[in-house]
Amino acid sequence: MMSIPRRALIGVLGGMGPAATIDFMIKMLKATTAANDQEHVPMIVHDVPQIPDRSTAIQNNSDEPWLPLLAGALMLERAGAELIAIPCNTAHHWYERLARSTNVEIVHIADAVNWSIKTRFRRINRLALMATRGTIQTAIYGERLADVVDQLIIPDVSIQNLIDQSIGAVKSGARPLAAMLAGDAAGRLLDAGADALLLACTELPVALEGSHYLGRSIDATDALAHHCVRTSISRLLGRQEAPSTIV
Amino acid sequence: MMSIPRRALIGVLGGMGPAATIDFMIKMLKATTAANDQEHVPMIVHDVPQIPDRSTAIQNNSDEPWLPLLAGALMLERAGAELIAIPCNTAHHWYERLARSTNVEIVHIADAVNWSIKTRFRRINRLALMATRGTIQTAIYGERLADVVDQLIIPDVSIQNLIDQSIGAVKSGARPLAAMLAGDAAGRLLDAGADALLLACTELPVALEGSHYLGRSIDATDALAHHCVRTSISRLLGRQEAPSTIV
Repeated sequence: MMSIPRRALIGVLGGMGPAATIDFMIKMLKATTAANDQEHVPMIVHDVPQIPDRSTAIQNNSDEPWLPLLAGALMLERAGAELIAIPCNTAHHWYERLARSTNVEIVHIADAVNWSIKTRFRRINRLALMATRGTIQTAIYGERLADVVDQLIIPDVSIQNLIDQSIGAVKSGARPLAAMLAGDAAGRLLDAGADALLLACTELPVALEGSHYLGRSIDATDALAHHCVRTSISRLLGRQEAPSTIV
Repeated sequence: MMSIPRRALIGVLGGMGPAATIDFMIKMLKATTAANDQEHVPMIVHDVPQIPDRSTAIQNNSDEPWLPLLAGALMLERAGAELIAIPCNTAHHWYERLARSTNVEIVHIADAVNWSIKTRFRRINRLALMATRGTIQTAIYGERLADVVDQLIIPDVSIQNLIDQSIGAVKSGARPLAAMLAGDAAGRLLDAGADALLLACTELPVALEGSHYLGRSIDATDALAHHCVRTSISRLLGRQEAPSTIV
């Protein structure tokens, strides 16, 4: 007889890009205390990188990513997901429509970041937004961080170019180049007076892996992973309290 | 207009354990040449670690894992998987029943290893099998490696104990301990005359990450990842040849 603990099934709308999805899964694993396989958080991962580039679409006023994103979310719903997470900041441009089109709760990455800032720092004065142009244009973070951040700093064009190039380098597997570019951008933002950095593209913590800049950063991927683990284990979704038993 | 390359969708029956599933996904990524997200291999990952322990079930003559495994495979079929891979050697105890119960081709991990040995070494004289007791008891590798391996060496009880403990240490997140135990077992098998080691439990390459023993090893996870990437990109599954175009 083996007792299997209850865990809510997390649906991951990923593949944007695939390295960022893996980074998210590693952060879920690290956020979980488990003595064996069965205590870990169950996930269905839609890791389909053929979804057209989100930032390019937003800048071109194109809706290309919408149908592939919707198809992914509905697949996760059919598979029984009880909470959906999207480890891609830019894809949150389509968040409200996705949330309206599915019957499963979708956590907004900015709400996970809000919780992370609140519990770790209470509030931050000047937070620099490191993200794609699409995320900045859509203002994914603005309102949802209003009660914990005094000023959200948007990089100037020269720093944004470094960030864009770093994200592209992660997607093509050029990690050392990505680290150099993201490190340069991070250093300039802190020199310009930012108190902390918000890594608001899931490629950026991959680019800065092992860097000392992580100590001055809020990692949106990590915030999202912690939210998912907390939700899955605490069964906030109203599942039965007693552990199920398989004889 | 953006051209999205055709890739066959790989279904991953994973979560056994979750760290091994991530290791498999990283190996898929490394086996893929891609300039952007869209050229990577699409996957649906059933990462549900609540499947009861496979090795314990085999040793107890229990069929507990069967229904959860079948449910996972059918979920991947419904999601449109065109090839299913199982990054858990021991779960191949149920391979024939799974293959009969689904309409999607399931690659057998031992066939991927056979191909890897054939292309890299042509054949191996004495290959030591590092695996769970369940994998050894079921003889998952025997016949399928018969044409490329002269002698499959089964560890004695003291070495097998080290292997079992190393696998358990990976599952509970104790990586340094896992590395020490697996390294000890690997060293003893090579000292006893093995020409190479077959890492035939997906936790073992995780345990030996960065170790010099990897140079003397066949990594079954890596062989399976290469098989999936080859299949997805070469469209061996009879999909249309022309790249699809999204306007």
